[in-house]
Amino acid sequence: MPKTQITAEPGIPQIIIEREFDAPRDLVFRAYTDPELIVRWLGPRELTTRIEEYDVRDGGRWRYVATDPDGNEYGFHGLFHGTPSPDATVQTFEFEGVPGHVALETLTLVERDGRTLVRTVSSFQSVEDRDGMVESGMEHGVLDSDERLGELLATMQAG
Amino acid sequence: MPKTQITAEPGIPQIIIEREFDAPRDLVFRAYTDPELIVRWLGPRELTTRIEEYDVRDGGRWRYVATDPDGNEYGFHGLFHGTPSPDATVQTFEFEGVPGHVALETLTLVERDGRTLVRTVSSFQSVEDRDGMVESGMEHGVLDSDERLGELLATMQAG
Repeated sequence: MPKTQITAEPGIPQIIIEREFDAPRDLVFRAYTDPELIVRWLGPRELTTRIEEYDVRDGGRWRYVATDPDGNEYGFHGLFHGTPSPDATVQTFEFEGVPGHVALETLTLVERDGRTLVRTVSSFQSVEDRDGMVESGMEHGVLDSDERLGELLATMQAG
Repeated sequence: MPKTQITAEPGIPQIIIEREFDAPRDLVFRAYTDPELIVRWLGPRELTTRIEEYDVRDGGRWRYVATDPDGNEYGFHGLFHGTPSPDATVQTFEFEGVPGHVALETLTLVERDGRTLVRTVSSFQSVEDRDGMVESGMEHGVLDSDERLGELLATMQAG
């Protein structure tokens, strides 16, 4: 299976994440927007994700909480700018552990030969914010999430 | 009067705009958040600005339309992420003439000796988007807006 590619160039306040999945993009979009599916893949395996709100429309709010094995909770929230679609989902993103630091995330899904390239561009308010995100151990969470999403998509297509 | 400083470094998908105003920051914040005041300074002098919506709260929408002397209309809209305050106002920004291209704007107001430094950081989805904004003639609009805001703040303090 192709691996996730994470790009975080020095001095550029962005993170670009790309991964191809062996599934049509409508299915991938469902996995990204249906709360019952999201909790099955979002986050590293050792955490449990609980969706508090996921109002997938222009101006809608989203919020989820990840809980670690010791019971510590990590909240994340944001707003959808524009109507989310497989072409583009644009949202704000804030980790509540570092309040006031906000990123703009753009998710695009491109299908080719039944496979889907998922690309996420995160634009930060500063390079320091971007570096803080990279140093937070984000990579582990992204890689685990993508592996879990690949497994979920395989299950959904087998079912 | 100190001039506006616009920073747009090559290859960095951001624009940073700074200007100091001879007014306390609560007054500057009012001028940025009260629709009746906003229309008196926002945009270049040759355009007329009409506020359609300005819901200054967490998750609130804003939209305004600028009309040129020929009657052409230019719409802009976005959402406030978090509760706007003089410390920080974070919002999404989209020019409807180029739909789907969104920026994240962060406005901070810092007061010192009765004067206020206004700093706006715009983070774009790509360097191409940022370059497009710079080439759109944004600078003229920013310089005019800042001049008009300076005049308005002077009037408000004299009154």
